[in-house]
Amino acid sequence: MNEDWVAHFPALQEVTDTAGREALAAGREVVLKPGDIAFRLGDACSHYLLVIEGSVKVRELGTSGREIILYRVQDGESCVLTTACLMAGGRYSAEAIAERPTRAVLIPAAAFQHALGHSEPFRRFVFHDYGQRLSELLELIEDIAFRRLDARLAERLLELAGEAPELHITHQELATELGSAREVISRQLKDMQRRGLVRLERGVIHLLDREALEHLAESD
Amino acid sequence: MNEDWVAHFPALQEVTDTAGREALAAGREVVLKPGDIAFRLGDACSHYLLVIEGSVKVRELGTSGREIILYRVQDGESCVLTTACLMAGGRYSAEAIAERPTRAVLIPAAAFQHALGHSEPFRRFVFHDYGQRLSELLELIEDIAFRRLDARLAERLLELAGEAPELHITHQELATELGSAREVISRQLKDMQRRGLVRLERGVIHLLDREALEHLAESD
Repeated sequence: MNEDWVAHFPALQEVTDTAGREALAAGREVVLKPGDIAFRLGDACSHYLLVIEGSVKVRELGTSGREIILYRVQDGESCVLTTACLMAGGRYSAEAIAERPTRAVLIPAAAFQHALGHSEPFRRFVFHDYGQRLSELLELIEDIAFRRLDARLAERLLELAGEAPELHITHQELATELGSAREVISRQLKDMQRRGLVRLERGVIHLLDREALEHLAESD
Repeated sequence: MNEDWVAHFPALQEVTDTAGREALAAGREVVLKPGDIAFRLGDACSHYLLVIEGSVKVRELGTSGREIILYRVQDGESCVLTTACLMAGGRYSAEAIAERPTRAVLIPAAAFQHALGHSEPFRRFVFHDYGQRLSELLELIEDIAFRRLDARLAERLLELAGEAPELHITHQELATELGSAREVISRQLKDMQRRGLVRLERGVIHLLDREALEHLAESD
């Protein structure tokens, strides 16, 4: 059994029963390059998806052709849409794309189902993680419905930049991050530039005043 | 055993095994009046909630004090937030209020957990319904992020009015339905009135031109 990956999921250490161990043993490690598709819209889901390290973004396409990032699956997390699909049947209503080099584990549907029925600790892991991800979706709804776009934009710029002084991203990509339209984001960014918070270049946003951006991010 | 209510859930007919039947037998029927609280923000969840007939709306409050209706639990449906809470632990992040006279069934957490572990048909029912409700939340995200507010408002007016020629609802209540602000909704309604689609009175909206409203609802 090659289950070194299990060490990356502390909650899976408790899975010591036979059915649970079998499911973990059936897990196959895969490596995704940035841009690789983890699953496509309309695919049937054949595997439970766990990310060891890296980042897979799950995005939905609206009928108008606009996009929104629903969530990311990152180190030690499972994918809520995959879990829902496996549990409820049906097909993916979104697509998942690796955005960094990503190591993931795929547990075949049959092994997943069997463990869900027979391993209490495995079930606990799956449900707990699923509940976490669901809460994040509810937060996203609250964000989109309630929070001012400029505050959300400032927050996302800081998140995506991390420690770096600038961010390589297009206005369209930012619109997708926030479920907004490109022209709306461009307007907001120009406004931020006028206020000295950022400096815009083609494909690059320089963060000039982090403190002001943080203040704006917390402004509602 | 008093399980007449089971007849309202066709998918539960398949639950014939002992563990599953025990959970159904542990279900207690309750009647809610309009305005009764089914669960409060911060409550621990003690029961699996199924609505036999009626309507319970689940709403979230933003930090700004604004509200949004996340979803409704209606005839033959379960509550996604309750299910998530029961499966993942944690407390309710929203509150649920009956908006019509409602008959519901409460299955105690322990009986629910036991059946989830031991009854394959019960598990199938729970997961399938859960997956359905999750899809609805994803649709809500898509709606809020992508669709024009006037189209969503027209759609909701038609939905809420049903066959009736008018709708008794405040602008604030409509804002909560759509995750928007009261003043924004008032502006949209006045615009609709100017275009002859509706006539506004205090607490009442008369639908004057259904065809135009339907056209608007489908306009994106």
